[in-house]
Amino acid sequence: MTKKTTIYDIAKKLNITAATVSRALNKNPKISDATKELVLKTATEMNYEQNKLAQALKNGKSYNVGVIVSRIDSNFFASIIRGIEEELFNHGYHVIICQTNNNEKMEAENINTLLNAQVDGILMSISNINIDKNIMFKKLLNKKIPLLFFDRKKSIPGISSITIDDFSAGYKATQHLIDEGCKRISHLSVDRNFEIFRDRFLGYKQALSDNNIPFDESLVIETKSNIEAGKEATKKLLKLQNPPDAIFSSSDFSALGAIQELKSQGIKIPQEVCVVGFSNEPFTKFMELSISSIDQSPVEMGKTTARVFIQQIKNKEKHVEQKVVLEPKLIIRKSSSKQNPSK
Amino acid sequence: MTKKTTIYDIAKKLNITAATVSRALNKNPKISDATKELVLKTATEMNYEQNKLAQALKNGKSYNVGVIVSRIDSNFFASIIRGIEEELFNHGYHVIICQTNNNEKMEAENINTLLNAQVDGILMSISNINIDKNIMFKKLLNKKIPLLFFDRKKSIPGISSITIDDFSAGYKATQHLIDEGCKRISHLSVDRNFEIFRDRFLGYKQALSDNNIPFDESLVIETKSNIEAGKEATKKLLKLQNPPDAIFSSSDFSALGAIQELKSQGIKIPQEVCVVGFSNEPFTKFMELSISSIDQSPVEMGKTTARVFIQQIKNKEKHVEQKVVLEPKLIIRKSSSKQNPSK
Repeated sequence: MTKKTTIYDIAKKLNITAATVSRALNKNPKISDATKELVLKTATEMNYEQNKLAQALKNGKSYNVGVIVSRIDSNFFASIIRGIEEELFNHGYHVIICQTNNNEKMEAENINTLLNAQVDGILMSISNINIDKNIMFKKLLNKKIPLLFFDRKKSIPGISSITIDDFSAGYKATQHLIDEGCKRISHLSVDRNFEIFRDRFLGYKQALSDNNIPFDESLVIETKSNIEAGKEATKKLLKLQNPPDAIFSSSDFSALGAIQELKSQGIKIPQEVCVVGFSNEPFTKFMELSISSIDQSPVEMGKTTARVFIQQIKNKEKHVEQKVVLEPKLIIRKSSSKQNPSK
Repeated sequence: MTKKTTIYDIAKKLNITAATVSRALNKNPKISDATKELVLKTATEMNYEQNKLAQALKNGKSYNVGVIVSRIDSNFFASIIRGIEEELFNHGYHVIICQTNNNEKMEAENINTLLNAQVDGILMSISNINIDKNIMFKKLLNKKIPLLFFDRKKSIPGISSITIDDFSAGYKATQHLIDEGCKRISHLSVDRNFEIFRDRFLGYKQALSDNNIPFDESLVIETKSNIEAGKEATKKLLKLQNPPDAIFSSSDFSALGAIQELKSQGIKIPQEVCVVGFSNEPFTKFMELSISSIDQSPVEMGKTTARVFIQQIKNKEKHVEQKVVLEPKLIIRKSSSKQNPSK
């Protein structure tokens, strides 16, 4: 094996001190850009391996932050990640992303992967409602690096979270449908073991109650967040003796499935059935029959998550649990504009 | 500082040998699942840090693979990543993802981030056409870990790539428009310094030539891959003295912009102008006016990329450069079905 290049070798070659080489490699602002460039170029030519990792093991900083989401191909999560990246980049941090595909085992493996990559913190939307029982998660807690939840959270003492007010979102969507004259409002829900989906459901229920509309359990279907699931659920709803005149879905993807099924059965939207989705995915806007939806300000959610992380990194001793709740916005489009079809 | 827990402490506590503890922690198949679970549980309770990283530094294996793409929120890249994950997971590898947002500096930082995370290889779609001049990229090459390009590649000796036959895709799309009776076919291109976009353009040109249709430079516009850019380009095309009767776009996103612009000007699709996009993004299928597009088999592209990576990891000595080219599929939908509108 060849002898490893050291900073002394580089210093000798460039006829500068080892301290300057070290500072240049560590991007010290006191060193000119020209010197930094020269040192980096020479270091690369000499096959010098700074081994930031060995450094990270020593001083406990990698300047990498791990983000875990269920899926990267939804605009919602992609926008959150964009917000996180934009904010963290200003503080010199880089983001590495893992996806769980809603698989609990994969989520545990992701945590392990990111810990092995020596991240300085993990920002995640959970896929396993019993995550606190998971051994990798316990390992993560033991590490005492910042851990934050966004969107799909679980209330765990000491862990900060950034969400929207999902109860309010469910309430607003339902109230809007009532205002449009709908009387039998159904709800496509997703696994209500997750707080966000439970809260949307509770908001829906409260709006019905406040408007003296009786709650009918047969109008609530728990389903997955995809097109096929939305179709299937809608088929079931339409077979009811007294079918609904509105569908409020906790997911834009199942709302799209609902619309496809309604159309295939010749049912007019919004005249016969109004539809409201959730997340304001771009397709809801650019479809011919545009879909009403709830905007969750994902970029803002990402930026806020990043800001809370930075605070935690800076105040390691005085760690304060934060629960940030952003206000959701109802976006009314064609799929639910019965009274005012020009929308 | 408290003394670190060692495998000997765990062995003592469980009354087994240190070798068994070590094997259990390293997931040796000879150890029963029950023992593995017990050892892992005890290790976590005792706050044992296996420090895979220190191990990785020693044996040079982290079992993490880095993937770099321009954006994670396109179905195309998300599907490639899914293919990569599915294939690599079977070999015990985990995937960590970085996005460049088409920013060259970010791409260089991503490479650095992944190298610092000690990945065993990098699979990437490039954002910088001069990537081979970049200092971080040179550092990556020096590392001698497997490096593969997929989709947006640059031909660099020794680096394998997995792409579709973009020339053939451009040819097929154009031939289809000619078969539909179109005579003035325009092309929305993207930065042709990238081989994939250049090849699509060359395929378009060849199909025109083979059908004795003169090539008209004013019908080719180089633009970005987004809705707004598609609208702008279409505005320009429609202002031509002799406007086009078809648009073949190298991007579904700009094809969508084109359609929006055509509609807003009251132009009938496909009767007056046919449109074909590229990538088969899901929205092309579920729009009312479904968009014809080129399917690039992204999951298969991801799986193939992963397979070539595994081959390279296994045959470090006998490294053979591979250029895998997959066959694109033309998907004909309403936006270009002038002859047979039932499609």
